[in-house]
Amino acid sequence: MTDNRKPVFLVIGAGGGIGGHCAMRFAAGGYHAVCARRSDADGLGELVGRIEAAGGTATGSLLNAAEDGSIEELVERIERDIGPIHAALYNLGAQIGNRTLENTPHRIFELGWRLGTFGLFRLAHAMFPAMVARGTGTMLVTSATAAVRGNAGQHSHAAAMGGRRMLCQTLNAEFAPQGIHVAHVVIDGPVDSPPLRKLLGDRWEGFAAAKGTGGIIDPAVLAETYWHLASQPKNCWTHELDVRPHSDVPWWNDNPAPEIDAR
Amino acid sequence: MTDNRKPVFLVIGAGGGIGGHCAMRFAAGGYHAVCARRSDADGLGELVGRIEAAGGTATGSLLNAAEDGSIEELVERIERDIGPIHAALYNLGAQIGNRTLENTPHRIFELGWRLGTFGLFRLAHAMFPAMVARGTGTMLVTSATAAVRGNAGQHSHAAAMGGRRMLCQTLNAEFAPQGIHVAHVVIDGPVDSPPLRKLLGDRWEGFAAAKGTGGIIDPAVLAETYWHLASQPKNCWTHELDVRPHSDVPWWNDNPAPEIDAR
Amino acid sequence: MTDNRKPVFLVIGAGGGIGGHCAMRFAAGGYHAVCARRSDADGLGELVGRIEAAGGTATGSLLNAAEDGSIEELVERIERDIGPIHAALYNLGAQIGNRTLENTPHRIFELGWRLGTFGLFRLAHAMFPAMVARGTGTMLVTSATAAVRGNAGQHSHAAAMGGRRMLCQTLNAEFAPQGIHVAHVVIDGPVDSPPLRKLLGDRWEGFAAAKGTGGIIDPAVLAETYWHLASQPKNCWTHELDVRPHSDVPWWNDNPAPEIDAR
Amino acid sequence: MTDNRKPVFLVIGAGGGIGGHCAMRFAAGGYHAVCARRSDADGLGELVGRIEAAGGTATGSLLNAAEDGSIEELVERIERDIGPIHAALYNLGAQIGNRTLENTPHRIFELGWRLGTFGLFRLAHAMFPAMVARGTGTMLVTSATAAVRGNAGQHSHAAAMGGRRMLCQTLNAEFAPQGIHVAHVVIDGPVDSPPLRKLLGDRWEGFAAAKGTGGIIDPAVLAETYWHLASQPKNCWTHELDVRPHSDVPWWNDNPAPEIDAR
Repeated sequence: MTDNRKPVFLVIGAGGGIGGHCAMRFAAGGYHAVCARRSDADGLGELVGRIEAAGGTATGSLLNAAEDGSIEELVERIERDIGPIHAALYNLGAQIGNRTLENTPHRIFELGWRLGTFGLFRLAHAMFPAMVARGTGTMLVTSATAAVRGNAGQHSHAAAMGGRRMLCQTLNAEFAPQGIHVAHVVIDGPVDSPPLRKLLGDRWEGFAAAKGTGGIIDPAVLAETYWHLASQPKNCWTHELDVRPHSDVPWWNDNPAPEIDAR
Repeated sequence: MTDNRKPVFLVIGAGGGIGGHCAMRFAAGGYHAVCARRSDADGLGELVGRIEAAGGTATGSLLNAAEDGSIEELVERIERDIGPIHAALYNLGAQIGNRTLENTPHRIFELGWRLGTFGLFRLAHAMFPAMVARGTGTMLVTSATAAVRGNAGQHSHAAAMGGRRMLCQTLNAEFAPQGIHVAHVVIDGPVDSPPLRKLLGDRWEGFAAAKGTGGIIDPAVLAETYWHLASQPKNCWTHELDVRPHSDVPWWNDNPAPEIDAR
Repeated sequence: MTDNRKPVFLVIGAGGGIGGHCAMRFAAGGYHAVCARRSDADGLGELVGRIEAAGGTATGSLLNAAEDGSIEELVERIERDIGPIHAALYNLGAQIGNRTLENTPHRIFELGWRLGTFGLFRLAHAMFPAMVARGTGTMLVTSATAAVRGNAGQHSHAAAMGGRRMLCQTLNAEFAPQGIHVAHVVIDGPVDSPPLRKLLGDRWEGFAAAKGTGGIIDPAVLAETYWHLASQPKNCWTHELDVRPHSDVPWWNDNPAPEIDAR
Repeated sequence: MTDNRKPVFLVIGAGGGIGGHCAMRFAAGGYHAVCARRSDADGLGELVGRIEAAGGTATGSLLNAAEDGSIEELVERIERDIGPIHAALYNLGAQIGNRTLENTPHRIFELGWRLGTFGLFRLAHAMFPAMVARGTGTMLVTSATAAVRGNAGQHSHAAAMGGRRMLCQTLNAEFAPQGIHVAHVVIDGPVDSPPLRKLLGDRWEGFAAAKGTGGIIDPAVLAETYWHLASQPKNCWTHELDVRPHSDVPWWNDNPAPEIDAR
């Protein structure tokens, strides 16, 4: 029995930045976008409205990803009531400020893991069986430099992202041969988004001026890279890549000063 | 006020393999070994007895590291009643068999994190303030190849170890300048130990014969490397290293077949 | 003074695989393709002919990249006579069979470096000043798994590719802020191409059947990923990514057998 | 026929820093040290004298490692006239200042490769057959952060070190099962040595004061880590490790500022 419904693109963490712009891009490309986020029903409605105004289709859904059963219920509901999930974006951050170890309470460290690692595991656990049955599926995972190096003040964030990265690798190892493509995207730089603008407040203009042209990631541009990843045929998959503004030298070049290397 | 008590070497996960042999090695080197493990009071007593028979001192302690407050209470009790913790070994594994995603229940994934990542965070959180106050301390961390690559069937293990590795990096970034040395040891190969012998049962002899001389890590030998790490002066610290039997080619050489590289 | 000539896409190593297909893709996208290869003038003519038949423009050029001055002369000639090089692909391999150390003569090791590392340095050295003056440019670099792990029998290849990868990083560190985008593409799997088919001869059919659908990289598909990289705006650049057939688990998963992790 | 001669420890690059201190350490441990360096016969004589004064034995040898046949001749001469090479240290740097691409002439880039990569290949090529025949051997390789990341101004150095690292991996893959241990030591920080003191001149005191206690690697201390590596039994080998002063956060922590991670 053929499923004649539109393929679904599920975004966990669909705000005004990467998540929302990917929803718009994939909707423009023919997917029905299911936009899940924790709160802000108005923002969700606006996103859905913008997608529909552009000729696409979308559904907004409130989701507390840290809550047991929440992701599982959403996946089940989509598959039953909306359409087959052909692609998904796990876009939840796990950074909760920059904190010394002393100022990182156990519950913050645990929350980082719940959003950063466990939620991704739960999404794969709930979503992959149907993808395996269909022999196809894509899971895009927004990640951060903290997944490949751990900086001071990043205990919760880096542990969560390090777990996320290794999980992407185990998922690829098990599911790529079964037709599911997992791509781990290491973002290294600021992304223009409502939360960043809100965080910076009055300082936004100065920040943007200091960064200059090409210094802040445009989420609409980044969405094209996500789209490209989801478009790669099975003979040519990318499992990991980095993205950054050109003026941010790669993280491995943070300190261009030469080592004094005298032997 | 000087603390005239013996420096303590705390082992979380002190069985008959790496943990127990490190306890013996550090006790021989002048530390009072505190050997913590989940169960098997007899095995613990035997380990303590062996250390004392060799002229050292040790204390056995039952510990359920997954339980809230357990590590914290132990650290507090040692500092108060036994001596200052100058070195510690976090030796808990997080591998719970080889399981497909489907056969990895949520509680297994969570347990992997509790033992693999969260317990290490809790140990550092509880133990580092006194080390910082003293300006010195060492935390050795037994890890696995799963911390640097994620294989099929290793979802829980790799996610836990990936988090462990990034956490070691954030801890080093924050605490190395304050005098605390964290070393992440990537073990890539079988370690001769009671659980391995028990697991293999009748097959042990054949396994050992197949591996040949130098094919199985001797935990007494490995303990020398841990001891060396703890002996490095502040001007020359190692933060990460691998260890493996010579007959196990490094994990990046699992497949020595040449790629067909035709362009 | 504006340069009204078509932007040039230069391919060093333009055969029937990745290089040729990228030439076609970039020509279709509006570039004038300059296709350089060591020999086989006929193959070159055929490639140029195919590009022109598709409505594009191209120039074929014989090039011995290992020869001093060859790349330098080509770059100078293109900038003077053909057009500004806005994008380039360094596509020379450095694999000269699978050889034990004993069977790797000095000259083979040196040749690997000349083609694998030094040629890339020479291309950047010759080509970047004009790109810097224009404030824009892209250099795509085909690489291999050998750049990130060294396997048995790959002494020459891995050393050359390891140098290539680090060079890409230093080039990015210095030139990304000046507007030049260097992307290092780690190919991990067989690519359908005339040399591979020739190498396998009668065994090609069996090889392809064993690999199955999606088991061999289609260079026309891969060219889309190269095109995407060259299309990324300055605020969102990728510096490294992997590509592989879905049925080839990532190289870090070559050995899915669980470690025996008994402590 | 048993070889009753003392085992030889060969140092390529035996100056007053890492190389010289390793020569002293290995001589103290029972090896006959062969100290090779490019020039400065006086410094060589002094090093040999110091080793002999401490009760050890040593031979000084002038060597231009960049010259064809030089390393090969030395290895042959040692095996014939002095003793079996059981351990060696390849300690040649490849850093020739910090240079922009424009200021890196072809010959500098090539020299970096000759000393950084090719010389190591030549040493292994010449030395390993006898080690394989004896079933044992150790090759220690001093390396740098440039082997794992490429910074601005490091084109020659990073390309050479990246090749060095991959070569160490291919050598391990082929020779570890045959009993030869290759260890790649990533030095990340200043090493107290005559060239560094000479380079800094009057600024040395200020530099040392700024670095503080534990801020500069003491080569005598580092030599203990090299000694430990060479002492690891076959069942427990380390192939790669980092060393750095405690006050130098690991290279992956150069920039402790949190990423702004707003999605």
